[in-house]
Amino acid sequence: MSKPEGLPEMEYRFLGRSGLKVSAISLGGWLTYGGHVDRDGTFSCMEAAYNSGVNFFDCAEGYAEGESEKVMGEAIKKYGWKRNDIVISTKLYWGGAFGNNKVNNLGLSRKHIIEGMDASLERLQLSYVDLIYAHRPDRHTPMEETVRAFNHLINNGKALYWGTSEWDASEIALAWRHADRLGLIGPVMEQPNYNMLDRVKVEGEFAHLYRELGLGLTVFSPLKQGILSGKYKNGIPDDSRFAQTEVDFVKGYWKRTGKEQWQQIIDQVNKLEPIAQKLGVKMSVLALAWVLSNPNVSSAITGASSPAQVYENVQAVAAYKKLTPDILKEIDDILNNKPPAITYRFD
Amino acid sequence: MSKPEGLPEMEYRFLGRSGLKVSAISLGGWLTYGGHVDRDGTFSCMEAAYNSGVNFFDCAEGYAEGESEKVMGEAIKKYGWKRNDIVISTKLYWGGAFGNNKVNNLGLSRKHIIEGMDASLERLQLSYVDLIYAHRPDRHTPMEETVRAFNHLINNGKALYWGTSEWDASEIALAWRHADRLGLIGPVMEQPNYNMLDRVKVEGEFAHLYRELGLGLTVFSPLKQGILSGKYKNGIPDDSRFAQTEVDFVKGYWKRTGKEQWQQIIDQVNKLEPIAQKLGVKMSVLALAWVLSNPNVSSAITGASSPAQVYENVQAVAAYKKLTPDILKEIDDILNNKPPAITYRFD
Amino acid sequence: MSKPEGLPEMEYRFLGRSGLKVSAISLGGWLTYGGHVDRDGTFSCMEAAYNSGVNFFDCAEGYAEGESEKVMGEAIKKYGWKRNDIVISTKLYWGGAFGNNKVNNLGLSRKHIIEGMDASLERLQLSYVDLIYAHRPDRHTPMEETVRAFNHLINNGKALYWGTSEWDASEIALAWRHADRLGLIGPVMEQPNYNMLDRVKVEGEFAHLYRELGLGLTVFSPLKQGILSGKYKNGIPDDSRFAQTEVDFVKGYWKRTGKEQWQQIIDQVNKLEPIAQKLGVKMSVLALAWVLSNPNVSSAITGASSPAQVYENVQAVAAYKKLTPDILKEIDDILNNKPPAITYRFD
Amino acid sequence: MSKPEGLPEMEYRFLGRSGLKVSAISLGGWLTYGGHVDRDGTFSCMEAAYNSGVNFFDCAEGYAEGESEKVMGEAIKKYGWKRNDIVISTKLYWGGAFGNNKVNNLGLSRKHIIEGMDASLERLQLSYVDLIYAHRPDRHTPMEETVRAFNHLINNGKALYWGTSEWDASEIALAWRHADRLGLIGPVMEQPNYNMLDRVKVEGEFAHLYRELGLGLTVFSPLKQGILSGKYKNGIPDDSRFAQTEVDFVKGYWKRTGKEQWQQIIDQVNKLEPIAQKLGVKMSVLALAWVLSNPNVSSAITGASSPAQVYENVQAVAAYKKLTPDILKEIDDILNNKPPAITYRFD
Repeated sequence: MSKPEGLPEMEYRFLGRSGLKVSAISLGGWLTYGGHVDRDGTFSCMEAAYNSGVNFFDCAEGYAEGESEKVMGEAIKKYGWKRNDIVISTKLYWGGAFGNNKVNNLGLSRKHIIEGMDASLERLQLSYVDLIYAHRPDRHTPMEETVRAFNHLINNGKALYWGTSEWDASEIALAWRHADRLGLIGPVMEQPNYNMLDRVKVEGEFAHLYRELGLGLTVFSPLKQGILSGKYKNGIPDDSRFAQTEVDFVKGYWKRTGKEQWQQIIDQVNKLEPIAQKLGVKMSVLALAWVLSNPNVSSAITGASSPAQVYENVQAVAAYKKLTPDILKEIDDILNNKPPAITYRFD
Repeated sequence: MSKPEGLPEMEYRFLGRSGLKVSAISLGGWLTYGGHVDRDGTFSCMEAAYNSGVNFFDCAEGYAEGESEKVMGEAIKKYGWKRNDIVISTKLYWGGAFGNNKVNNLGLSRKHIIEGMDASLERLQLSYVDLIYAHRPDRHTPMEETVRAFNHLINNGKALYWGTSEWDASEIALAWRHADRLGLIGPVMEQPNYNMLDRVKVEGEFAHLYRELGLGLTVFSPLKQGILSGKYKNGIPDDSRFAQTEVDFVKGYWKRTGKEQWQQIIDQVNKLEPIAQKLGVKMSVLALAWVLSNPNVSSAITGASSPAQVYENVQAVAAYKKLTPDILKEIDDILNNKPPAITYRFD
Repeated sequence: MSKPEGLPEMEYRFLGRSGLKVSAISLGGWLTYGGHVDRDGTFSCMEAAYNSGVNFFDCAEGYAEGESEKVMGEAIKKYGWKRNDIVISTKLYWGGAFGNNKVNNLGLSRKHIIEGMDASLERLQLSYVDLIYAHRPDRHTPMEETVRAFNHLINNGKALYWGTSEWDASEIALAWRHADRLGLIGPVMEQPNYNMLDRVKVEGEFAHLYRELGLGLTVFSPLKQGILSGKYKNGIPDDSRFAQTEVDFVKGYWKRTGKEQWQQIIDQVNKLEPIAQKLGVKMSVLALAWVLSNPNVSSAITGASSPAQVYENVQAVAAYKKLTPDILKEIDDILNNKPPAITYRFD
Repeated sequence: MSKPEGLPEMEYRFLGRSGLKVSAISLGGWLTYGGHVDRDGTFSCMEAAYNSGVNFFDCAEGYAEGESEKVMGEAIKKYGWKRNDIVISTKLYWGGAFGNNKVNNLGLSRKHIIEGMDASLERLQLSYVDLIYAHRPDRHTPMEETVRAFNHLINNGKALYWGTSEWDASEIALAWRHADRLGLIGPVMEQPNYNMLDRVKVEGEFAHLYRELGLGLTVFSPLKQGILSGKYKNGIPDDSRFAQTEVDFVKGYWKRTGKEQWQQIIDQVNKLEPIAQKLGVKMSVLALAWVLSNPNVSSAITGASSPAQVYENVQAVAAYKKLTPDILKEIDDILNNKPPAITYRFD
């Protein structure tokens, strides 16, 4: 199978201030591979992505208790992709505890980072990953120990770059403090939640880190778990069209925020739909394209349960180029959630 | 004049992880000295404070366009206090523009830090201050330049310690990154807004910095500009009892937040009043005592327009020792604004 | 076999200022495994410890001329414990000489540290230990060489953390001097003798190192080789109830200190017995609990020659929580050996 | 006045691992100048010392509440000694509080070190001292702050070398840790108590620091406040021959240690007397000579209340060369207080 007709050329972006290039659209295993998408489904999605030019596949020790790494590793082997053509990531923090006790199998101690890395590589059937993430901050472990341990992985050839996921700006800055002090490698990328509805972290809190630290972003939930695809626009989740995971997701959301807030969001998405139509793309493609229009985003990590979904997501690589300043303004006006710029010297 | 009867012994606290001791209650010039409190009023407040054991006097180049520094400098001279017995601070950022154009007379460039310091020292009639603060972050100036410039002041004997005011946690961490990388002195203290009604920064955002960086706090607005003194409890600010500055303050507040939110705050303060009565102190003393009960606070900077107010504030040094865990819990229940703890590895 | 009924939940403590957690009660091989406790006895003690939640097993190249490492390694293999669930230590200094000449098989030269580590790992049948200790200071080897050699072990994946045993405060500080100067990893833990009768080092000499260096302690002889268990209270060691090792121990003690001083100690222990009774625990449990009540102790390393002894020791994890300030004061009054606090600036 | 006949040539020793030379016998102001020795007495003692080749004059801000610095400064001026021919020291820690409050006028904060130095230089009428000492450790002030502040004095030309007085080995090592980490100057000398009766610190605790850090010693109380001069050998201190300060000293000693222990010391000194006679020197000269026979001693700081005493002390420079290994062994056998060597690798 080769690239289907009608797909745009993939775009590759530098991962922050590094020399590594990742596809602007990437494929992640969270909630899907090793989970509700079966083995063959995983294989065909990954094949479709690879054939579309996706080079970056994202995973974590904690996804599906290690099953996600296993099945993604099998796919890499099955298709015989060259190691140097692909960028593989995993994340350490949560997952070390399955089948183990929790005492030292969680968090960012030197012990778990080293032991967790070896366990991940074994599941992935790889000798190294390209990117290794700290899947959360661990304020119990001294930052210096964590920075040293990720450098140990790099020095021992088990990872090429390290980064963070869901850290706050001050934690990232503290990691760089120790890295610089010790002449070690700092975290080059952060993996935050980022989409039209969740902008505070990426556009507000991190604003100065792009310049100060060269921080790159590989963002997750660019469609806010499907909400921005418009699929809930008439939204009765117990409708038979919906899988149980989706029903659970929506019901959970209702519980946390109230049905009213949910409805507000759905209304907002519905107001964006005409813009998608005007551009001739699906709502989900507009949402992804909007994420790619942020130059600080190196890659948008998408989930997909079918090759069709993969191909749809890849359209965003072309679509984001149609987002003129005027259209972006129109979207901002609907969203009405742009984080205020941090005021500077002359405000 | 010597210490009035009935005043508690002043308490001196280390300024963060430094060897310098500052009085737990200090006196600041913001909005008062050089402003609506006249020269003689400033002198008598500062004398009352000194006689009460206050050793730390806080100022800024921007307070009253430099007049605050001038009058505080005059007081120091007038009373002949020994330089080594007092701790004098000022802040650089805002104030350099009066009488100058704004191009290079604002912010944290090397030029303004060096020139602003000299101008402040001249107004203060001192050869050095103990503490020099960056009065805001300046994201236009590279952090390295700012860190180097404050070290330049210290190396040239114009200041003993440097710190920040109203910086966010990541900015403070970035300053330490450059300080450590270059073997320079990092910022030892931060001056944030902190009081019963504004807790997010001090108790939430900065939580890990006390341990990681040894950050000390000199907090301002411990009475939230008088709201926590209870003086607005029946609060019609156009009442003739109120000065124009107070009327303006409340009307500004109404405009920003709506009268409803103002009333909610006043109601909350009114609920705290019985606790103050039970402890046998004024509401304002309770509010100050509550600030001092936070061990990360090195000093609460108070404003005062009369010696009587100074003496009242100093009572907090004794009062905070009466705040048992039970009473603090009772206060927390009324305030209902304790920032959530950052979750850790095993939550 | 699983955890016996009536045992408290194990407590895990961070090892000094590291992210590693060790069980508050740990099991050591000194004088027992490979020595007077036979192979099967070792297995059943280690199994009992593991089932009680003990995760830290302590050894040394010098214990029983390497036999201790061998038998502990066999136990780990026999029970199939997961490597990431346990914390294994050994120590380098003394032991390399058995079967070799002494010229370069003792001390802390780069040669012995590297060669000794490999020999220990072979005896343990492991590819790495979690903790590697310098079993004594070696003032003949430059500190820089020793610090570099332990970092070499860590960089090569043969150990995760390094520390010291029976070093003095200045030697530990000198190790950190070189570690910091060179950007290397310093010693995170020290293994001193600590018990009710030997307090000078842990409570006096090291007092500032907990804060300055984040030093963690894994203490040995918490029962002072059984004296604090009360077993010698009527103490005629040639009594047939006593093993030859115990008889030798007591006679050696008499020889070194005189019978009179021995009797004073026994009398003191006898006075502690009523406190144990009041708390409803054995004297040995009280002695261990007292050690755990010191927050600078990460783990108390116990010896045991039977599973019953292991279970008894683990009781201390619950018992130490009963040691109120009043009881600790009562104990201090009997012991009368609290090291004086180092006087500070304002004493 | 020039050097009296019969005086040996002064010996100059390097101050630890520095390039500075100090006279083996030096003159200190403790308890004498500014205190019980009057202005003219001070002048004549200092003149006698200078004429005997003494180049190092030791003082402290705390001696006689600053009077010691004042009178020594006057002497330097009076005699017109060239600044480059003499080595002047003072010490910061205790003394800043006279006439001031104690809050920031004691200890080793940056504030007191800088302000105290300026006050000392003013009293000494000098623009710099050669040696500046931290007169005690200050565990409340972070070591980094103290190390930086002494370097600040050196960088600003107010002192040439810095050192410590009565610090323990670990504190000295921690100072070097920060100095090395930051590329700053570490403490080159320590000023401990050292004499025939007090040997633990210099010969035991510091043993490894001479090689590791190049530590130099300027020792005080080489005659143990006169005890080693033999003047108390028939020792009734209320005897009219004794000054009140001496009477007070002995009575204080009795109170602290009991008359019995005092007598033991006197007996020991009496046993040393025949050795002095054999060598043809006074007991006090033997005691000083014994101190100089330790090659780690850069200078023995003597007190003197008359020129005659100065000349007597200087005799030790010749006398110590007569102390053969056999005589030193004889002395050691009488003293019976040689600290045990720290055991090394092959003991």
